[in-house]
Amino acid sequence: MQKLEQLYEGKAKKVFKTDDPEVLMVDYKDDATAFNGEKKGTIESKGIINNKVTNHLMKMLEKEGIPTHLIEEVSDRETLVKKVTIVPLEVIVRNVAAGSFSKRYGVEEGKELLCPSLEFSLKDDALGDPLINSYHVLALGLATQEEIDLIAKYAFKVNEILKAYLLKLGIKLIDFKLEFGKTSDGTIVLADEISPDTCRFWDVETNEKLDKDRFRRDLGHVEDAYQEIMKRLMGM
Amino acid sequence: MQKLEQLYEGKAKKVFKTDDPEVLMVDYKDDATAFNGEKKGTIESKGIINNKVTNHLMKMLEKEGIPTHLIEEVSDRETLVKKVTIVPLEVIVRNVAAGSFSKRYGVEEGKELLCPSLEFSLKDDALGDPLINSYHVLALGLATQEEIDLIAKYAFKVNEILKAYLLKLGIKLIDFKLEFGKTSDGTIVLADEISPDTCRFWDVETNEKLDKDRFRRDLGHVEDAYQEIMKRLMGM
Ligand SMILES: Nc1ncnc2c1ncn2[C@@H]1O[C@H](COP(=O)(O)OP(=O)(O)OP(=O)(O)O)[C@@H](O)[C@H]1O
Ligand SMILES: Nc1ncnc2c1ncn2[C@@H]1O[C@H](COP(=O)(O)OP(=O)(O)OP(=O)(O)O)[C@@H](O)[C@H]1O
Ligand SMILES: [Mg+2]
Ligand SMILES: [Mg+2]
Repeated sequence: MQKLEQLYEGKAKKVFKTDDPEVLMVDYKDDATAFNGEKKGTIESKGIINNKVTNHLMKMLEKEGIPTHLIEEVSDRETLVKKVTIVPLEVIVRNVAAGSFSKRYGVEEGKELLCPSLEFSLKDDALGDPLINSYHVLALGLATQEEIDLIAKYAFKVNEILKAYLLKLGIKLIDFKLEFGKTSDGTIVLADEISPDTCRFWDVETNEKLDKDRFRRDLGHVEDAYQEIMKRLMGM
Repeated sequence: MQKLEQLYEGKAKKVFKTDDPEVLMVDYKDDATAFNGEKKGTIESKGIINNKVTNHLMKMLEKEGIPTHLIEEVSDRETLVKKVTIVPLEVIVRNVAAGSFSKRYGVEEGKELLCPSLEFSLKDDALGDPLINSYHVLALGLATQEEIDLIAKYAFKVNEILKAYLLKLGIKLIDFKLEFGKTSDGTIVLADEISPDTCRFWDVETNEKLDKDRFRRDLGHVEDAYQEIMKRLMGM
């Protein structure tokens, strides 16, 4: 498969065309941003770790019945994926209050939720990715009821699979962000990435943060945290 | 029924105990506030109009099968209502993009939505009444799934009834905010008010605003708009 021209450069990844119109190549960068791009930096080897962790988790999810965009890892930073039209929603699942949820509702970070919660944000940087509910999604024609229901079902199932898997590795899954897309035949698949950039991982014993919050909040040992996640998940 | 000590003074109404522990007296003020209390003013006779308009609409909704807190109007500004524990959610139904919805999602004010939309805000002035979804409501234990479903059903039904009724009077119902409460026996009823303070009413021919947006946005003729609504609804 040939890597052709760049389609898009995002904050964390570059996306390239290939010689197959249904296939894209994702190239993970070490660039880190937070607060809608206001804070910028670099996390050494992040691109490699996020590529490998994402593919490892997506492979596992595929086996458990979640369709994903993953085709094949082709290098440390590069992966072939099915080209999709991204549903313009960030899909966030939460098990424990943290981050924007804690701030928005005045709930102490670390408080266990009574049940896992799901929320959508409209993917629109200029608007600050505002919270949006499923009635709004329908009212604005951003997705159909069937698509919303399927995405919600997948998101909760991903949560159950990941939560159980990570717990065995001493990691508490606090919350995470998913993106879904539609392939050319209209199938909804899990796309984008699942990594310490897009999840909150806390050590089960110490509650130490092993994710991008170390960068956001200047907690130090950012690279160590990403390395620790790769080590626990993939033994490397 | 005797009016006893004041329980609560809000921005638009005072609430008093009565000699029946299950009954409160609401007393509507002319005070107007906007932007979470930042802007303050007075709208002459607003208290009288909101009292009468609310009771007129609640009576109609009761006939159509929506349980409400209304017992009896006792004076121009005073009404006896069933005492409830307010569910701490503002319940907002929208037919047309306007106000915070337009701003949040970058949708032009006046754009017809593809279908009516429902949203909840957490009733918490200190947090700025943040948008909240039904998963969050469950995760924080603010209401049960059954209560959420019933409130959603009532809210959409109120919309259908009011929309049709107002259209005959030359008024387009753009959006509105409801509050629900639980009586001592656990029944969910519509509470608070339905008035030009809590609805967006546009003249069907001219799109002239006949509601609190005239006050919020300094459009002038605020009192006239409230009077016009009372005239169209109640012929007075
Ligand atoms: N399978 C796919 N097909 C097409 N686009 C994809 C696929 N998977 C992910 N994407 C998109 O590719 C981009 C990845 O780049 P990156 O994560 O760096 O973007 P970003 O800076 O987060 O910006 P955005 O706000 O667009 O998500 C994102 O826009 C993401 O939605
Ligand atoms: N039947 C009822 N029983 C008890 N409380 C009620 C009832 N109907 C309305 N209320 C409450 O009475 C208060 C009415 O006052 P007002 O509308 O002026 O309050 P507000 O300034 O809007 O403040 P709030 O943020 O509390 O709604 C509100 O808190 C409302 O929720
Ligand atoms: Mg991204
Ligand atoms: Mg009020």
